[in-house]
Amino acid sequence: MRKLKSGIYGLNPLLDGGMNENSTTVVIGRSGAGKTTFATQFIRRGLQDGQEGIFVSLDENKEQIIREAVEMGWSDILDYLEDELLVFIDASGREFSNFIRKELPSFVAEWKGSNARIAIDPLTPVMWSTKDLYEQRDLIGFMLKQTRRVGTVLCTLEDHGQYDLSSPETVIPMYLSDCVIHLRFNGEEADHIRSLKILKCRSSRHSQATHPYEIVRGFGILLQGIEPRRPASAKIPSQLRQMVLTRVLPKPVVERIERALDGLTDHDFRTLKPEQILSLIIQEYQDA
Amino acid sequence: MRKLKSGIYGLNPLLDGGMNENSTTVVIGRSGAGKTTFATQFIRRGLQDGQEGIFVSLDENKEQIIREAVEMGWSDILDYLEDELLVFIDASGREFSNFIRKELPSFVAEWKGSNARIAIDPLTPVMWSTKDLYEQRDLIGFMLKQTRRVGTVLCTLEDHGQYDLSSPETVIPMYLSDCVIHLRFNGEEADHIRSLKILKCRSSRHSQATHPYEIVRGFGILLQGIEPRRPASAKIPSQLRQMVLTRVLPKPVVERIERALDGLTDHDFRTLKPEQILSLIIQEYQDA
Amino acid sequence: MRKLKSGIYGLNPLLDGGMNENSTTVVIGRSGAGKTTFATQFIRRGLQDGQEGIFVSLDENKEQIIREAVEMGWSDILDYLEDELLVFIDASGREFSNFIRKELPSFVAEWKGSNARIAIDPLTPVMWSTKDLYEQRDLIGFMLKQTRRVGTVLCTLEDHGQYDLSSPETVIPMYLSDCVIHLRFNGEEADHIRSLKILKCRSSRHSQATHPYEIVRGFGILLQGIEPRRPASAKIPSQLRQMVLTRVLPKPVVERIERALDGLTDHDFRTLKPEQILSLIIQEYQDA
Amino acid sequence: MRKLKSGIYGLNPLLDGGMNENSTTVVIGRSGAGKTTFATQFIRRGLQDGQEGIFVSLDENKEQIIREAVEMGWSDILDYLEDELLVFIDASGREFSNFIRKELPSFVAEWKGSNARIAIDPLTPVMWSTKDLYEQRDLIGFMLKQTRRVGTVLCTLEDHGQYDLSSPETVIPMYLSDCVIHLRFNGEEADHIRSLKILKCRSSRHSQATHPYEIVRGFGILLQGIEPRRPASAKIPSQLRQMVLTRVLPKPVVERIERALDGLTDHDFRTLKPEQILSLIIQEYQDA
Amino acid sequence: MRKLKSGIYGLNPLLDGGMNENSTTVVIGRSGAGKTTFATQFIRRGLQDGQEGIFVSLDENKEQIIREAVEMGWSDILDYLEDELLVFIDASGREFSNFIRKELPSFVAEWKGSNARIAIDPLTPVMWSTKDLYEQRDLIGFMLKQTRRVGTVLCTLEDHGQYDLSSPETVIPMYLSDCVIHLRFNGEEADHIRSLKILKCRSSRHSQATHPYEIVRGFGILLQGIEPRRPASAKIPSQLRQMVLTRVLPKPVVERIERALDGLTDHDFRTLKPEQILSLIIQEYQDA
Amino acid sequence: MRKLKSGIYGLNPLLDGGMNENSTTVVIGRSGAGKTTFATQFIRRGLQDGQEGIFVSLDENKEQIIREAVEMGWSDILDYLEDELLVFIDASGREFSNFIRKELPSFVAEWKGSNARIAIDPLTPVMWSTKDLYEQRDLIGFMLKQTRRVGTVLCTLEDHGQYDLSSPETVIPMYLSDCVIHLRFNGEEADHIRSLKILKCRSSRHSQATHPYEIVRGFGILLQGIEPRRPASAKIPSQLRQMVLTRVLPKPVVERIERALDGLTDHDFRTLKPEQILSLIIQEYQDA
Repeated sequence: MRKLKSGIYGLNPLLDGGMNENSTTVVIGRSGAGKTTFATQFIRRGLQDGQEGIFVSLDENKEQIIREAVEMGWSDILDYLEDELLVFIDASGREFSNFIRKELPSFVAEWKGSNARIAIDPLTPVMWSTKDLYEQRDLIGFMLKQTRRVGTVLCTLEDHGQYDLSSPETVIPMYLSDCVIHLRFNGEEADHIRSLKILKCRSSRHSQATHPYEIVRGFGILLQGIEPRRPASAKIPSQLRQMVLTRVLPKPVVERIERALDGLTDHDFRTLKPEQILSLIIQEYQDA
Repeated sequence: MRKLKSGIYGLNPLLDGGMNENSTTVVIGRSGAGKTTFATQFIRRGLQDGQEGIFVSLDENKEQIIREAVEMGWSDILDYLEDELLVFIDASGREFSNFIRKELPSFVAEWKGSNARIAIDPLTPVMWSTKDLYEQRDLIGFMLKQTRRVGTVLCTLEDHGQYDLSSPETVIPMYLSDCVIHLRFNGEEADHIRSLKILKCRSSRHSQATHPYEIVRGFGILLQGIEPRRPASAKIPSQLRQMVLTRVLPKPVVERIERALDGLTDHDFRTLKPEQILSLIIQEYQDA
Repeated sequence: MRKLKSGIYGLNPLLDGGMNENSTTVVIGRSGAGKTTFATQFIRRGLQDGQEGIFVSLDENKEQIIREAVEMGWSDILDYLEDELLVFIDASGREFSNFIRKELPSFVAEWKGSNARIAIDPLTPVMWSTKDLYEQRDLIGFMLKQTRRVGTVLCTLEDHGQYDLSSPETVIPMYLSDCVIHLRFNGEEADHIRSLKILKCRSSRHSQATHPYEIVRGFGILLQGIEPRRPASAKIPSQLRQMVLTRVLPKPVVERIERALDGLTDHDFRTLKPEQILSLIIQEYQDA
Repeated sequence: MRKLKSGIYGLNPLLDGGMNENSTTVVIGRSGAGKTTFATQFIRRGLQDGQEGIFVSLDENKEQIIREAVEMGWSDILDYLEDELLVFIDASGREFSNFIRKELPSFVAEWKGSNARIAIDPLTPVMWSTKDLYEQRDLIGFMLKQTRRVGTVLCTLEDHGQYDLSSPETVIPMYLSDCVIHLRFNGEEADHIRSLKILKCRSSRHSQATHPYEIVRGFGILLQGIEPRRPASAKIPSQLRQMVLTRVLPKPVVERIERALDGLTDHDFRTLKPEQILSLIIQEYQDA
Repeated sequence: MRKLKSGIYGLNPLLDGGMNENSTTVVIGRSGAGKTTFATQFIRRGLQDGQEGIFVSLDENKEQIIREAVEMGWSDILDYLEDELLVFIDASGREFSNFIRKELPSFVAEWKGSNARIAIDPLTPVMWSTKDLYEQRDLIGFMLKQTRRVGTVLCTLEDHGQYDLSSPETVIPMYLSDCVIHLRFNGEEADHIRSLKILKCRSSRHSQATHPYEIVRGFGILLQGIEPRRPASAKIPSQLRQMVLTRVLPKPVVERIERALDGLTDHDFRTLKPEQILSLIIQEYQDA
Repeated sequence: MRKLKSGIYGLNPLLDGGMNENSTTVVIGRSGAGKTTFATQFIRRGLQDGQEGIFVSLDENKEQIIREAVEMGWSDILDYLEDELLVFIDASGREFSNFIRKELPSFVAEWKGSNARIAIDPLTPVMWSTKDLYEQRDLIGFMLKQTRRVGTVLCTLEDHGQYDLSSPETVIPMYLSDCVIHLRFNGEEADHIRSLKILKCRSSRHSQATHPYEIVRGFGILLQGIEPRRPASAKIPSQLRQMVLTRVLPKPVVERIERALDGLTDHDFRTLKPEQILSLIIQEYQDA
């Protein structure tokens, strides 16, 4: 699975090298957390690497997104627009819902494999275009499945929950997307500390910690205290291989372990020890 | 009641030897808990033992489930698919609801007794295909009752509750299924510790403790700190038999105890002592 | 009022000798609490004493109830079924609701006075067959009133409340039935301790304590630490009679006390003392 | 305002001598609190004093109410019924709602001034006969206003609130009735202590304390620790009169105080002192 | 703005001298707090001063309001009624809502400037005559705007909120009226202490404290511990004037301060000091 | 981006110099917080600087707003009205909603670029004119987008939330506007302390602290303890420039930093240090 640079300073090592190509990511946050900044950095990083960009701006706020990008010091956005490397789709929630239902398949057929970056900011009005949870799930599921065939997809989502991320409007996209990033920020709190947490990332050994971040003019979102990732050791897999060689074990256990160990590193085993794994496999397959 | 190996490393001893054949199990968990991994391990374990597999993937995500299985190191899934030992049914919630109402009986008539393993992942869109609690209960009840005639059934269920598992969407399947397993995981919490708890398992002396688990590439879900089950002693039943022989007791009491003790072990008596049981039976039947 | 043995080991003394004949009891509990086991023990105890049994199984789960009874070691259930002493009515919630509205009066006319035991397991889908609280109350009230003319009635009720038993679905049957028994159990809690509490029992001096219980194969539900009931003393009533004789009291007070004391025991007076009662009666009737 | 003996042992002194004639009282309580016992004692007390009794039993439970009265030792109820001094109206919530809307005025015209006691047990299904808060208020308001022209009215009300008495179903009758009595009891709690509190009583110096009570066979509800009321002193009113005589005060102040003091006792002044009252009146009227 | 004596003993100093003429006041309280007593004192005080009184009694309870006034010792109410100085409008919520929509403008045209006192007791059924928040707001807004053209208006409002005054039914009238007074009382609490708090009063330096009160027969509501208001000093305004004279300041700052200081007292400045104000004004206007 | 003086004493330094021209601001607060005072100060400050003022008063309360302004000592408002520099639009919520949908575009076409100040007080009835969240968002989004083309816009919003600002009615305008100011005030609390917090302000280095404020007759809202803003140092940007010069760095890193540093000050970097930024950029672009 190819990794793409996210464009968010410090985020790539936390995502096991970057975003997975053709994956879908949801970025959740309250008002002021920096969701649009995140989406713009993501799109712009692709443009710098030669990928095309599709920015779906809901709430008819194309001009505002561009103005904010320019204020942030990213006026090259205007050049990409002129060169038609960056395309804006500016729609209301209902218009975009209708587009998904009626025109998305033919759009995908045309753009398929173009390897573009797609940002949808914010997904919320699309969710609100119907009140039925089943319809919401169906619509978002279809949209995510189709758009990822075009390229790598990022949606922002407003956080309307009072205490945690358990309202249906938040949970549905969380279940359906490959990667979920929470930008924690509450303007009402005494100290305006922003922090980022990766809640889920399929096919990645992602960070499970909380990382403070800042939004700095000229740069955008920067994560604090991030160190480059060190190459992982493979000591535990080799210990397991040793055990298999030096002990008399049933054939299904031996086959199982040998097949499983290819490419694993110590990180994959988290808190488990080689003896534990060996014992669990023997137990499961001893009478097979 | 025949016990089947679950395929989840370490789970069988907690379920009194494994899953009951032709039973229905619901696995509940939040986004990222590993529900699809659980379902895939369950199906694959059956395939290894010669059972056929039926994987009902909701949200039209057949490709994704297969891709994740391959990433996990389980590419033999592809062979089973080619050999038609593993069948995918890929449907939306409404399509599957209609299938249950209209075609399930004839499907069951055809497959009945085939002893397949059936996974439905996730059950949530089927629940959402109607808003009426009565209809939900009716639909899920009918589906569970029918599918268990085909084989052993496992459904995953998304956890949408804020605090505990008491929302109707969770409670209805819990009441209707034979076995309920809770994968506890909350991506928002500071420490990403996963743990498994068996909330209910009909016709089994199941574990009542909470067991931490990890998801390890190449292996899947592994429970930590599980020891093989020791054979149960039958000291208490034999004490009760002794009491019946050595005391003068009313006939209904003697009959009652003799009939009940066959095959019981000390585990069955939990915290009760033989004298307590004897006294309760005498009390209930003394004037009969 | 005749007392019937409940069949639950240890419960009768807590109910002042047993269940009242022709009364209605509601047993409330979460998934896994043992509601169906309770209902089966209740029905089977009647069969042993020559009473007929009517088991209304909702959710179309007749087979499952029988299977669980056999697994519990109660295979005599099959004989009673064959002899038509035990009758199963297997219906969906809507079918049973329609039965109540249209056919119950003629059913009652036929069975009236047969002194059968009737179990309805669970009542929940009947409640859910309508959403209107008024209709629910009307339906359940009519059903309880009619069925008790046939015999002694026990309904199980699923506990869908988050914190306590105050949701309308639970409260309506609690108000309308004669006896309410709460099986306390929550599979999610760390320690799976089960306990029973009688919340209400009309025309009975019932226990007000919480009693732990176990479910043991071969026996069913057994309450722990229950001692046989001692015969009640009548010291307080005789003291009150003494006071009436030895003091000069207004006629209405004397009449009132004499009429009230027949058959009372010390238990009836709970924490009240004879002088308090005398003083309250004098106060109420002094100027009559 | 004439005071009627309530029939509840110990309650009259807490209500400033008894219930006000032609007033309306609402008795609120959970299942098992003793609401029907309260209503029966109230009606029976009137019958003993020659007042007629009208018992409106909702939920079609006339027989049950009579049976419970007999079990309580109050079989004279049967005689009153035969003599037609006690009348039962047995209706469903909707039937009684229709009666209120269509026939109550002519019923009142016939019975007006008969000085009967009227019990409505429980009021809840009447409330539930419509879902609209406005209609509920209109219906209950009209019913209370009309029935009090016939005599003294008591309604019982089920407590469906989770924490306190603030749900609309409870609050509407509380606002509309003259007197509100809360029977506090929760069967789920560890200790089954019952207690009574008068939340409101128009035109009465009622108790503001909480009073434990018991339900005793042969007697019914008995309040504990109630002492007969002592005659109130009128020291504060006479001090105020003194002040008016001995000081030079503006005429409106003098008139105001003289007019207000008739029949007042020290209880009326609660925590206020005569100087405070004098100063407040001077302040309000000094420039008049 | 002319100040009117409220008739509530001790309230006028807390309202900066009394109620503002032609203002609207909402009095909020639970059952038993004394809302009707408050409204009657308000109306009766006006009658004593020669103002006409219009009492709109909802829930058709005209007779009850008059009876309670007489019991309170205020039988002069009957004379005012006979003399047609006090007028009762007795209506249901819907009738009064229709009156507001259709007849209020012509009513106002007729009575405009009559300087009457108007009490509406309680406003709640008028709110409930529609369920739509927008309609409620529209109706109450129009009613308050129109009636204040006739005179000084007081509405009572039932408190249906569980914890605080944040339910829409309470908040809408709070936003729309000039003055909001909260009568704090909860009959369920252990100690029946009543207290009054002014939540808002436009164009008044009102009290911000909580004041205990009692309801005393013969007098009505009396606030405790209220001292007559002392005349306010104007030391801070004069200090500010001094500063303006003795320093070299930009012209807009000088003008601003001179215009603003007329009639201000030290109370107006609350916790602010003259230097702070001067500095803020300089800052705002320095580059103007 | 041009900065406008807000008219609120002490607010401008907290907003990085003032309000952004052609931005939209939402001011949220409970009853009594001073929302209308804030809006009036904002409009009046523009009038003093020669900007035209458009005051949209909902709830048909034009007269009241003017009366309060005059009472506050701002009678120059009357002159501006006469001179038609200040225009009042007095409408109900539905009327204004219809105006937005049908006439706003032509209104904007006429007034576009007039650089007026526009106040909408309160926005709440406009939100309530529809119940559908999608429609609310669509309406408010369109309105804010259009009106900012005319000038600088300020809307007040009533705070109907119980605990925090997370109800949809509050959150929708918060997401859609450029600047959100919370006036914290709760009349029910013991101490009436008012405080202001800027929750969000696009394109501004705004204050993140909580600032107490007072409302003083003659002046309006004054923030306490505000010091004039000191000019920001640019030490960190120059350090970063130094690093770029003195180290051997990849070309994309050099370009990135040089482009980004123009016009930045130390405030922009918040808690980040130059080395951190350099390291993050190298990491992101090292293999580009």
